[in-house]
Parts: sequence; structure tokens; C-alpha cells
Amino acid sequence: MSKKVAVIMGSDSDFPVVKAAVEKLKAFGVPYEVHVMSAHRTPDAAADFSKHAAENGFGVIIAAAGMAAHLGGVLAAHTILPVIGIPIKSASFDGMDALLATVQMPPGVPVATVGINAAANAGLLAIQMLALSDTALADKLAAMKQDMAEGVAKKDAAMQEMVNSL
Amino acid sequence: MSKKVAVIMGSDSDFPVVKAAVEKLKAFGVPYEVHVMSAHRTPDAAADFSKHAAENGFGVIIAAAGMAAHLGGVLAAHTILPVIGIPIKSASFDGMDALLATVQMPPGVPVATVGINAAANAGLLAIQMLALSDTALADKLAAMKQDMAEGVAKKDAAMQEMVNSL
Amino acid sequence: MSKKVAVIMGSDSDFPVVKAAVEKLKAFGVPYEVHVMSAHRTPDAAADFSKHAAENGFGVIIAAAGMAAHLGGVLAAHTILPVIGIPIKSASFDGMDALLATVQMPPGVPVATVGINAAANAGLLAIQMLALSDTALADKLAAMKQDMAEGVAKKDAAMQEMVNSL
Amino acid sequence: MSKKVAVIMGSDSDFPVVKAAVEKLKAFGVPYEVHVMSAHRTPDAAADFSKHAAENGFGVIIAAAGMAAHLGGVLAAHTILPVIGIPIKSASFDGMDALLATVQMPPGVPVATVGINAAANAGLLAIQMLALSDTALADKLAAMKQDMAEGVAKKDAAMQEMVNSL
Amino acid sequence: MSKKVAVIMGSDSDFPVVKAAVEKLKAFGVPYEVHVMSAHRTPDAAADFSKHAAENGFGVIIAAAGMAAHLGGVLAAHTILPVIGIPIKSASFDGMDALLATVQMPPGVPVATVGINAAANAGLLAIQMLALSDTALADKLAAMKQDMAEGVAKKDAAMQEMVNSL
Amino acid sequence: MSKKVAVIMGSDSDFPVVKAAVEKLKAFGVPYEVHVMSAHRTPDAAADFSKHAAENGFGVIIAAAGMAAHLGGVLAAHTILPVIGIPIKSASFDGMDALLATVQMPPGVPVATVGINAAANAGLLAIQMLALSDTALADKLAAMKQDMAEGVAKKDAAMQEMVNSL
Amino acid sequence: MSKKVAVIMGSDSDFPVVKAAVEKLKAFGVPYEVHVMSAHRTPDAAADFSKHAAENGFGVIIAAAGMAAHLGGVLAAHTILPVIGIPIKSASFDGMDALLATVQMPPGVPVATVGINAAANAGLLAIQMLALSDTALADKLAAMKQDMAEGVAKKDAAMQEMVNSL
Amino acid sequence: MSKKVAVIMGSDSDFPVVKAAVEKLKAFGVPYEVHVMSAHRTPDAAADFSKHAAENGFGVIIAAAGMAAHLGGVLAAHTILPVIGIPIKSASFDGMDALLATVQMPPGVPVATVGINAAANAGLLAIQMLALSDTALADKLAAMKQDMAEGVAKKDAAMQEMVNSL
Repeated sequence: MSKKVAVIMGSDSDFPVVKAAVEKLKAFGVPYEVHVMSAHRTPDAAADFSKHAAENGFGVIIAAAGMAAHLGGVLAAHTILPVIGIPIKSASFDGMDALLATVQMPPGVPVATVGINAAANAGLLAIQMLALSDTALADKLAAMKQDMAEGVAKKDAAMQEMVNSL
Repeated sequence: MSKKVAVIMGSDSDFPVVKAAVEKLKAFGVPYEVHVMSAHRTPDAAADFSKHAAENGFGVIIAAAGMAAHLGGVLAAHTILPVIGIPIKSASFDGMDALLATVQMPPGVPVATVGINAAANAGLLAIQMLALSDTALADKLAAMKQDMAEGVAKKDAAMQEMVNSL
Repeated sequence: MSKKVAVIMGSDSDFPVVKAAVEKLKAFGVPYEVHVMSAHRTPDAAADFSKHAAENGFGVIIAAAGMAAHLGGVLAAHTILPVIGIPIKSASFDGMDALLATVQMPPGVPVATVGINAAANAGLLAIQMLALSDTALADKLAAMKQDMAEGVAKKDAAMQEMVNSL
Repeated sequence: MSKKVAVIMGSDSDFPVVKAAVEKLKAFGVPYEVHVMSAHRTPDAAADFSKHAAENGFGVIIAAAGMAAHLGGVLAAHTILPVIGIPIKSASFDGMDALLATVQMPPGVPVATVGINAAANAGLLAIQMLALSDTALADKLAAMKQDMAEGVAKKDAAMQEMVNSL
Repeated sequence: MSKKVAVIMGSDSDFPVVKAAVEKLKAFGVPYEVHVMSAHRTPDAAADFSKHAAENGFGVIIAAAGMAAHLGGVLAAHTILPVIGIPIKSASFDGMDALLATVQMPPGVPVATVGINAAANAGLLAIQMLALSDTALADKLAAMKQDMAEGVAKKDAAMQEMVNSL
Repeated sequence: MSKKVAVIMGSDSDFPVVKAAVEKLKAFGVPYEVHVMSAHRTPDAAADFSKHAAENGFGVIIAAAGMAAHLGGVLAAHTILPVIGIPIKSASFDGMDALLATVQMPPGVPVATVGINAAANAGLLAIQMLALSDTALADKLAAMKQDMAEGVAKKDAAMQEMVNSL
Repeated sequence: MSKKVAVIMGSDSDFPVVKAAVEKLKAFGVPYEVHVMSAHRTPDAAADFSKHAAENGFGVIIAAAGMAAHLGGVLAAHTILPVIGIPIKSASFDGMDALLATVQMPPGVPVATVGINAAANAGLLAIQMLALSDTALADKLAAMKQDMAEGVAKKDAAMQEMVNSL
Repeated sequence: MSKKVAVIMGSDSDFPVVKAAVEKLKAFGVPYEVHVMSAHRTPDAAADFSKHAAENGFGVIIAAAGMAAHLGGVLAAHTILPVIGIPIKSASFDGMDALLATVQMPPGVPVATVGINAAANAGLLAIQMLALSDTALADKLAAMKQDMAEGVAKKDAAMQEMVNSL
């Protein structure tokens, strides 16, 4: 069976954004766990989780945090698993604080950063990583890509009708 | 044998930055290819490369570009392989243009973005992805992490001597 | 008859902004087509459209996209027609991500960029280009410029009355 | 014969950047004039030039200015010809001041903005506009695009050799 | 009698912000005129107004504009009167575009810039300038400063009560 | 005789920038004093100077400071004279910190802000204010404006020769 | 008894944000005073307060201000007590103006800056400083830290239930 | 004897900046230790140091880091001692990434942030905290403040001579 994906968020108030990642994992049938852990309020729990993530069956860790978003970096410090960071948009700076705090990691400890609040893309990126050794997952990704293109084509067709009626 | 990593840059003038990714791949014994392809000047070559990357034995694509850095997104549009984007610092904005053009991808087509000019981290991230199904690679990553920690510890010891002599 | 203007948007959710370009084209009697095509979700359709735009009777392409706005650049990569980019304001950064991703093109592949959400100006700019070889269009532009000045003069007059009643 | 392109710069100190536009025009055989005119120091000369540009045989105006770059907007205020703005990088903000002052034009008066210091692209954009009614120019643009792609392909080939010797 | 202050705005939609300047002038008994003039839509009217402002009895010009806010600079280009610029906050960038387009003037043509939407301060600054040769105005300014300090002191006293009741 | 202009800088290291203001004052024959006073290191001296500036014969105060540039605001707090702020570019942020700390003053206490390091414009703005009641100064400003325009016209002529020799 | 903490805000309109600092002080039993004082509207009162703060029994000063937030710096200029600055988010720039105006202090006069609107953290930081010589306070801080971790752990447990029911 | 100050930096390459903090501590006779510890490369060492800092005689921790500067936050997560963060300017963004990653801490875990590279101020801030319960230190701070003011006064006097000789 596929390795699990851990979806960690710094605050449960981030769940309305983060759940798009969970939904992708569920839709692709990838096993996952979801946790609330804070780099600053439960640093030992976060470190402990990350240190044992590989042996506990995880393959990828997704970390979502806002403001001085240290969660991705703190988790990446304790594991060699790929860590995906979702910068969460908070009350100020449209998430630029979280983006820079997530992406500007020092040499040796990367965090694979996606866009502001881009939880769905974080989920897909995790699935892409797992699909490297899981052809069934790869086939599902290819099918989704095809569906996505067809969806745009349908919207293009609908646009023609709308524009003609202007 | 491990899948290959493609290292694609938009301009050969980016190579002095990008080579740190190549060096990581070489150091870990991961096979790779390096190409100059432009999203804007050779769009067909780039699309073609990406469409056939999986069947040609690639597992991960690293894309490095500056300014309106479309390369990562254009490659990701044509493949389900994970694409890692390196925003290159150019003459203006310290690479913020390339960062935003790389990381702010729309839903459905993620690019795993690393820091400005962070080519070494891009290489490591690609290795982390491949290590999900390659325990030898995983062991090398763990050893590197250990070395890195010991390197900092040595620098801490050296700092004590320097400070004492102030 | 005048060459056509293509108005391409990355997502149909951009239409409420983009329609101001269509309205300008309609008001000036310039033929146009409107399409939904994505640089990332339908890259082949976008490339194909652009490659054949000139032979299909188009003279100018307007591309509207938000976030990592690659659409203008991707279309410009495949044509020698002038491409006008409209950076769309999305959930973060007030459209700065789209502006930089649209305007900071590498040498050889320009995108004529207008302001954030400035679809009306994109339409006018396309008309200005076509008017270079269409004196009737040029006359309409001159008339519009005159109307615009008179409109401001009327508002100035109305302002005098309002201020006097303060 | 082709209409002329006016290349206007706010200060002669901008010429080292601006000359890349002139070189493109010269290479494509497009007639041009180059002027130093300031929106703030010679506003009447600038307004006068723009008002009579069309009747004086100009088809496109390129305006290059830094800091509070009003030149493009001031010229566009007085003509219906397409105006291309080049934001010049000055001592502060990497040209962001000039970019915003050039691109964020109000409805009715567009300025076709290119990237920071992107004078070559401004020249090409002007040529693309003129090529709408000049097939010889269009053929030259297509040839340049082909050359550009071949240039990248050669650099890709050279890269293979360099990488093999690492 | 005191020289007049001209309050010019680029669009009548800016009046809700700009009226705070008018109210200050009215409260201090300084004569004023309010106009809608656009650097881009009525450039000749704006230039003409500015050229004759001194002879028409104006002492200070206040210019309010948003986006690529050229109005202050265009007016300053045609007069030696001090010009005060109010950067107006528009739909994007919180007024940063207008601030930079107003304040970053080239050597020789200053615009005295106040904060984003700071129309009241623009009015006060105009009054301060006129008060240089009008001791009655200066006395009113001193009185206002005293009132302002007393207002804060009262709020401090009220705060004590509120805090005690927490 | 004209009122004096005070040129205050937060640090004598700012003098190489600030002296352009002094030179303008000297060239126009406006009396001035130059001081080093810090809002943070000599707050009492700065407050004292400002409180008595009017009675000591000053008409305008120019304040130059970098980083968290409080000097203009602190001086403006203690006087009804117009205060002109020059944001000085320091080691970080190209002077954006100083610009925002100077221009974003609260209602009631304006600081007339010029561009980053724009000391010459600060000097001119002070002269424009004093010229409101000094026709000899006004005549000199008009002459300077004329000279400035002629200077640009000469550079335009020289540009024609240079371009012809390309 | 513990030294007092002064909580100073530039405007009483900031109290809804600032009260979180007061609540922390109250919860920890630390004595405090709350004042409205403005660096610009009551500069003498602010200077006077700060000069005598130590002798009046204060140990720490918290200063909250928005826009060109000079309050922290002005208070720090007159005391050797540690001053904590809270940058308040105002109408523009999400508080970036206040952050830079607070944190970028010149050498010799630090202001301990917390995040945008981070009044609770300002209160805690003041308590941490006082706890250096107050073990009872230190014990309360340790208890709060423990509570905080347990709170996150409970939210993690609740998250498990919610996710299972998806 | 006074509690010790810990000066921790993420990389020994930061020492040329950080040493200004050490020099202040030395000048004031405050005991200190200097360490190289990384939030990402030696996370366990950093956590361990912070957890035991209070019992090991430390009163204040200074953390200096660049880029995604997590060091201050990670140390603050494990202690109730006040933690001072110095954002270090690195290759991109003039230290804005480090500033936001240091200052934008979540509720409950403050980091007292000083300006970009403001190591001297970090040292002084630590001394101010310790001086709350150490009157000898407080006296030294007051003396330094006096010296600083006299230094500025001397520079003001020297400025008079220089200006007179212009």
C-alpha cells in the first residue's frame, strides 16, 4: 500500500483552507493523517512527529502555517522526507510573510513551497511524488489532467455562447 | 537504477547558479540530464521534452528561470511528474518576479518552489523524492543530514575560541 | 475588413473583468473572438491557437490571467502578432504576481502589459494598433478622446456647483 | 514606406539602456527618430511632439523614463497612436516606481508597458505593431523568431558538452 | 487677502477623500477653487490652469490622483508655485502606485507629497505655506495645534476611566 | 530679508546627500542654517529647536533622515512652520522605510515629503514656499525653470547628432 | 511589588487592538497604566512621561501606533527602560509602514518590535522581562506555556475526530 | 552577578554582523556566551540549549538569522526567557524575508525584533532588560545615552564649521 501523507497545520483555524489538500488525497485514495501541531506552541510534538514520520509509514509531509510560518522548516529539520509548505494568508501582507518564511530555506533543508493557500496543489504535489513508484496513482493523475483540459474546453464552448448573446 | 532528474534552465547564463543542483545530483549518484530550453524562445522543445519526460526515464524535473519565470509552469503543464522551480535572481526585484511567477500556480498544476537561486536545495528535494522508493538514497540523505549537523557543531566550537580571543 | 482581435482568458471566472475589453471592441466595430484557454490546463490548445492566429485572421491577441500569469507569455512565444497582457487581480498581492509574471518578459518576446484588471485599456490598445492602417478606426479613437475630455470638463462644471453648496 | 517610430527618453542619461530599442529598429529597417524630452522639464515640447506625431509620419511612440515616470502617460494623453512605455531602473526600488507610474494608467489612455529596462522588447513590440500592415516586416520577425530558437538549441548542445566534462 | 488654493482632482470620484482638504481651507478662511482636471484626459486644460495659476491669484496647488498619479507632476511642470500631491488609494496596491508616482519626481520639479488619502494634511500644509506671510493664519494654526493637544489629553483622561472599569 | 531655512539632518553621515539642498539655497541667496540633530539621540535639542524656529527667523524646516525616519515628524510636532522631509536611502529597502516613516503622518501634522535622497528638490520646494511672498525669488525660480527647459532642448539636439552617427 | 508596565497608544481608536496587551498584564497580575499620548500631537506629554517613567515605578513601556509610527522611538529616546513597539495596521499597507517605522531604529535606541497588531505578545514580552527578577511571574509564564501546548494537543485530538467524519 | 546573555547565530558567516552585539555586552560588563546553532541543521541542539538556558544562568537570548529566519522563534518556543531576534540581510530582499520570519510570531510566543542587522541594538536591548534589576547597569545605560547626545552635539558644532566654509 502507498505510503501515508501527513497533513500538519499550525492552527486548527487553518483547516478551512487546508482541507482542499485532504480532499485531493482522499479523491486519489492516498492514505493520510491530519494533525494540529505548532512549531512554537508544541515544538517537541512537532519535532517528534517528524523524526519518526518515515518509520511510521509516512512518505510526504504537508505543512500549512501563516505569519512567521516556521512549521515547514521545523518539520524538514528532523526528516529526510520531502516536506511541502503551504503559506497561509493571515491578517497582514496577503501571506507574503508566510511565503518568505516557508520558501527561503537555507542550503541543506529544502521545503517544497506551493502558492498562498494552495492546499489543493500541495495535495497534488504529494500525490505526484508518491506516483513516482505507483503506476496506478500515475494513471489517476494523467486522467485528472485530461479531465481538467476537457473542463476548460467546455468552458470555452460555453463562453462562445455567452459572448454571442452580448 | 534510479529515474533520471532533468535540470532545465531558461538561459545558459543561469548555469553558474544552477550547477549547484547538478553537483548535488552527482554527489548522490543520481543520473541526470541538463538542458537549456526556454518557455518563450523554444516553447515547442520545452513542451515536447516535458510530454515525453516520464517515458524517457525521468522522475523529476527541475526548472530554473528568472524574471517572468514561466518555465516551471510550462513544463508542469505537460507532465504529471513533480516539477521543482528555482526562481533565479535577475537584474530587478531580487528575484521576487521569478518567485511569484513560479510559486503562484493555479489549482491543478503545482510547481514545488525553492528559494531564490536555491539550486542546491532543488537538487536535494529531487533526491528526497526519488529516495521515497530507494533506501540507498535515503541512507545517503540521512548521512548528509548527520554531517551537516556535525559541521555546525564544529563551527560552534571554533566560535568559542574566536570569541574568547576577542 | 479589419483583422480580428482575440481575447483569451485563463479562466472563465475572469470574464467579469475581461468583458470591458470586449465591450470596447464591440463599440468600435472591431471583429473579435473570445476564448477560455489556460497556459497550464490546456497548453496545447493555447499554443495551437497562437501558432495559427495570424493565418486565421487575427491581428492582435489580448491575454488575461491572474496569479503566475503565464498566458500572455505562452501565447507570445508562438506568434509574431502583438500580444497584450492584462494582469488579473486575484486573492493575494493585489495582482502584483500577475503584473510581474506578465511584464517581465525576456528579450525577444515582448508582452504589451496594461494595468491591473485594465481590460478596457487593453481593448483600446488593440484598437490603436489596428488603427495604424485603418483611418476610420483612427477617426473613432480621436472622437472618443474628444468625448472623454468633454466628459471631464462637464464633471468639472458640476463640481463647481457642488462645492459652492458646501 | 513604413511609418516612423519615435523613441523619446526623459533624460539623455537613459540612452545606454534605450539604445537597444534603436538597434532593433535599425536592424529591421524601420525609420525612427530619437529625442530627449521631459514630461516635467519640457512639458510643452513633449505635448507638442505627441499632438503632431501622427501627421508627422509616426506610427508608434516609445517612451523611456525612470522614477515617477510620467513620460509615457503624458505622450499618450495627446495622441491616439499606441505608446510603449519602458520603465527605467533608477537609484531606488529597482524600477518599481517607474513600472507602476507607467503601467497603472487610468481608463481611456493605455500605455503598452514592457519590463524594467526592456528597451529591446519595446523596439520589437513597435515592429510587431507596424508589421500588422507590412508583410515584409512580418517575415523578418518570423525569421528572427526562428533564429532565436536555433540560438537556444545551440546553447543546449553546448551545455551537453560542458556538463559531460564536469 | 490671502492667495487662493487650487484643489485639483483627477476624477470626481476622488471627491469623498479630497473634501477633507476643502474643509480645512474653509475652516481657516482660506479662499480656494476646486476642479476636476485629468493629466491624461484633459492634459491641455491642466497645463493651461497651471501656467496661469499664479497670475490668477493662486498661491498653492493641491493635486489628488490615484494609480499612475501624474497630476501633481504635470501641474508642477508648468508653475513655480508649490504643488502638494495627495496619493489616492485605488483598487490595487493600497495607493503605493500613486505614492511613488507622486513623490519620486526628478530633480528640478518637486511635488510636496503627503500620506495616502491624507487630504486634511494637504489642506493644512497649504495653510502653513500661506501662513508664512499671514500672521492671522499662523495664529489660527497655533490655536489648532493647541486644541489638538487638548483633545488627546481628554482622550487620555477618558481612557483612564475606561481602563479602570475593565 | 527672507526668512531662513533650517536644514536638519539626523546624522552627519547624511551630509553628502543633504548638501544638494544647501547648494540650492545658496544659489538662490536664501539664508539658511545647517544642523545635526537626532529625533532619538538628541530629542530635547530637536524639540527645542523646532519650538523656537519661527521666533528665531526660520520660515521652513527641511529634515533629512533614514531608516525609521522620525525627524521630520518630531520637528513638525513642535512647530506650525512647513516641514519638508527627505527620506534618506540607507542599507536596506532602498529608503522605503524612511519614505513611509516620513510621509505617512497622522492627521494634523503634515510633513511635505520629497523623493528618496531628493535633497535638491527639498531645497527648491522651500524656495517655492518662500517665493510666495518674495517676487525676486519667484523671478529666479522662473528663470531656473526656463534654463532647465533649454538644457533639455540642448541635450535633444546633441542626441540627434549622436544618433545620426550610430 | 513588581514594576509597572506603561501601555501607551497614539490614538484611542487603537484600543480595540491594544487591550489584548492589557488583558495579559491583568491576567498575570502585573500592575499597569494605560495612556493615550501622541508623538505628534502631544509630543511634550510623551517626552515627559518617558523621562520620568523609571522614577515613577515603570519597568517597561509598550507603545502602539500606526502609519508613520514614531511613538515607540520617541519614548525610547527619553528613557533607558526597554520599550516594546506594536505596529498597528491602518488603512494602507497592512501595517508595513508602522512596522518599518517602529523596527528600523538607529544604533543606540532600540525598540523591541512585535508583529502587526500583536498586542498580546507585547504584553507577554513585557512580562518576560519583568520575570527575569520575579520567580513567581516566571512560574506563571511556564504554566501558561504548558497550558498553551495542552490546548494545541486537544485541538489535534478534536481534529482527528473531525477528519474521520469527512 | 548578572545573568548571562546568549548570542546565537544560525551561521558563523553572520558573525561580522553579530559581533556588534557582543561588543556592547563586553563594554557593559555583561557576561555572555556566543554560539553557532541552526534551527534547521542542528534543531535538537538549539532546542536543548533553549530549554536549559534559564537554569544555566542565562537571562536573555539573542538570535540572529537570515532568509527564512526561524531561529528566534524556535528558541522562543522552548523558553520563557525574552528572546531578541536580529534579522540578517542576505542575498535577496534586503532582509525583508528575515524580518517577517522573525517578527510575525503567533500569539503566545513573542520575539523582540530589532532592525535589519541591528546587532548593537540587540545587545543594548538585552542590557536594558537586565538593567531592570541591576542599578549599576542602569547607570551605565544612562551615561551612554548622555555620551550619545554629546556626540551628536559635537557633530552639530563641527557641521557649522564645515558649512561656513562652503
